[in-house]
Amino acid sequence: MAMATKETEEVVDEVEGLKLEEGGEEGTDVDPWDVKGKVDYGKLIKKFGCQAISDEQVERIERVTSMKAHHFLKRKTFFAHRDLDQILQAHEKGEPFYLYTGRGPSSEALHLGHLVPFMFTKYLQDAFKVPLVIQLTDDEKVLWRSLGIEEAKRLARENAKDIIACGFDINRTFMFSDFEYVGGKFYENINSIQRCVTLNQARGIFGFKGEDNIGKVAFPAIQASPALPDTFPHIFGSNKKVRCLIPCAIDQDPYFRMTRDVVPRLGYHKPALIESVFFPALQGDSGKMSASDPNSSIFVTDTRKMIKNKINKYAFSGGQDTLEEQREKGANLDVDVPWKYLNFFMEDEEKLKEIGEKYSSGQMLTGEIKAILIDVLADMVERHQKARAMVTDEIVDAFLAKRPLAF
Amino acid sequence: MAMATKETEEVVDEVEGLKLEEGGEEGTDVDPWDVKGKVDYGKLIKKFGCQAISDEQVERIERVTSMKAHHFLKRKTFFAHRDLDQILQAHEKGEPFYLYTGRGPSSEALHLGHLVPFMFTKYLQDAFKVPLVIQLTDDEKVLWRSLGIEEAKRLARENAKDIIACGFDINRTFMFSDFEYVGGKFYENINSIQRCVTLNQARGIFGFKGEDNIGKVAFPAIQASPALPDTFPHIFGSNKKVRCLIPCAIDQDPYFRMTRDVVPRLGYHKPALIESVFFPALQGDSGKMSASDPNSSIFVTDTRKMIKNKINKYAFSGGQDTLEEQREKGANLDVDVPWKYLNFFMEDEEKLKEIGEKYSSGQMLTGEIKAILIDVLADMVERHQKARAMVTDEIVDAFLAKRPLAF
Repeated sequence: MAMATKETEEVVDEVEGLKLEEGGEEGTDVDPWDVKGKVDYGKLIKKFGCQAISDEQVERIERVTSMKAHHFLKRKTFFAHRDLDQILQAHEKGEPFYLYTGRGPSSEALHLGHLVPFMFTKYLQDAFKVPLVIQLTDDEKVLWRSLGIEEAKRLARENAKDIIACGFDINRTFMFSDFEYVGGKFYENINSIQRCVTLNQARGIFGFKGEDNIGKVAFPAIQASPALPDTFPHIFGSNKKVRCLIPCAIDQDPYFRMTRDVVPRLGYHKPALIESVFFPALQGDSGKMSASDPNSSIFVTDTRKMIKNKINKYAFSGGQDTLEEQREKGANLDVDVPWKYLNFFMEDEEKLKEIGEKYSSGQMLTGEIKAILIDVLADMVERHQKARAMVTDEIVDAFLAKRPLAF
Repeated sequence: MAMATKETEEVVDEVEGLKLEEGGEEGTDVDPWDVKGKVDYGKLIKKFGCQAISDEQVERIERVTSMKAHHFLKRKTFFAHRDLDQILQAHEKGEPFYLYTGRGPSSEALHLGHLVPFMFTKYLQDAFKVPLVIQLTDDEKVLWRSLGIEEAKRLARENAKDIIACGFDINRTFMFSDFEYVGGKFYENINSIQRCVTLNQARGIFGFKGEDNIGKVAFPAIQASPALPDTFPHIFGSNKKVRCLIPCAIDQDPYFRMTRDVVPRLGYHKPALIESVFFPALQGDSGKMSASDPNSSIFVTDTRKMIKNKINKYAFSGGQDTLEEQREKGANLDVDVPWKYLNFFMEDEEKLKEIGEKYSSGQMLTGEIKAILIDVLADMVERHQKARAMVTDEIVDAFLAKRPLAF
């Protein structure tokens, strides 16, 4: 699953034509493989048919979990949902649910945007104390790219280490690669979903063309199946009624729209969704984060020095051209990448607010906000690297082992 | 795999439109799901691009195996091939090959036509002493029919008993149901093949339409994969160079044409094929064998009395309308179903020849040839029933167990 941030990498040329049928607004093309141009999230919600997360819902989450809401919720980084209230209601009644997220292992090193859904999922797991399944779609990456199977499996394990480093509870987390786990009940559920989706529907939702391979055409069922609890008999037995909540970037919505359409016919609840905005490239809205362009983003393997250099050199600034102008007019936060990145990763609400006020009013200069961001990111990346260094192959095996989870 | 004889059953209406792109000759529509009208096998060979089996090849098989050729070969019941010489050459050089056949478990009871590829495969296994894999495509039957997964799996096991009753050597035979066996290297090979086949190509070969489900579109890779030896690591390890010979009815040719096109790119030999004519319905060329019409064929569960009644009542006769006319003109063997059935199942060459001469010259009457046929079929079905009664669930489990084979 490319729980993608605004990522495109080498695949762009290949899938250039894959657009949602309902799409077409200028400047906003969003599908599971590509995001282009400046995104109007209000329009996107309307187009996709999901709902905005309200302040009341954020408060309800705090009440239900007896925990302060993650700043991703307060700041509406996760801004849209489907059936979130049903999940909260079920949880209030003591009915179980589980979390499902994933990653398409297409590159060695994750960038910061890749971490966003995992950081948020970790918060949800801690707050709700529920089981979590994480799908590594190594099979998807072979179908979409010129990647060998062994290489895709290797990347899946490498990425698994970065994901584990986000701090997931091994007692509540089952991670799996499709190449390792497809079979049994998982394959039966893939088959059941494939049977319910026509070629016309798949083309309508995902824009597949005649030149696309037949694996791509059938793949949506493979990403859909983990939303069915009995895909994991070692966790849920044959229980078809455990609800599923999927945290992801909103470009994954088409997969789960399809899933929600199909699975009630098979006797399951529709999976609920909680969806994030895209993580911007260093170059801002016009840029694309690409694994083949190391300067388009910060990677979790970058050193403090590399981070400093990239932010100073490439992070698109909304500040004014001259010192005098900046003092007079202040920065345009709407396009300022350092400001956006701080909104993702600076936890301290007060401090963030103060920076925003000072920077937009001209009291603070671009160099100053960049210096703050460099510290925040470098500290975070260093923490991540330390955590990742602790993740041995044995720990990966333990997360990947088919076993019962606390449930 | 519907290693189908001229079978259609309930699926006809559903796939009415599935025709080969190259098709269109009036009266001959052949694809993996349907065969209609009188088939001109000469034309079919040309259309599909396979070769006729020559008398020299039959003699070579006898020489290579030091065994009398099966009458299915002598009578050209198996009449077409692809790369048969390469298989024989490999065998002569002591290089290993394996056999692959299968069945789509769509009905409780097999009819006589279903037995034809298995009877022939048993002969090949005995003659060449090579491993055999038998695929039960329970997943296919769910995708194509309104069949539940549990029911498809049950039918797979029931059909497995009939297949085992044909006398396969347990030391050289691995049988598997897709629902049980998809996963691991099998799934990797499915993925590799799917990646090499575009939607356009699949539509061209199989005639899929927009209303078809995406599982159907991707299914050809599932039938193709067992032609790759490393789909069976417990038998062939990671050896990609073991050749594969597929005995089947010629309606399965499109699947393996696709397979042959794709697999050299993945480092495998093209699978070889040995292909049979279709088994006719009791009603002759105009009829369709259908599990929902018990009078369209003889089933392996029929009693001697039922067989007698069906043959006498429904078997289309090429004999003349009156005794006098028959004595004068003789029977038209080209359309006579009792004669065709005897050609399938009467082993004695001399006796068969004598019957053909007497019946076509008018010395023998329709009632007489039918009486002979009834004995041949009833004896064969009784033998089958006795053998099947011996096949316990434990024996089925043993054939389905992943294990090394004599190789």
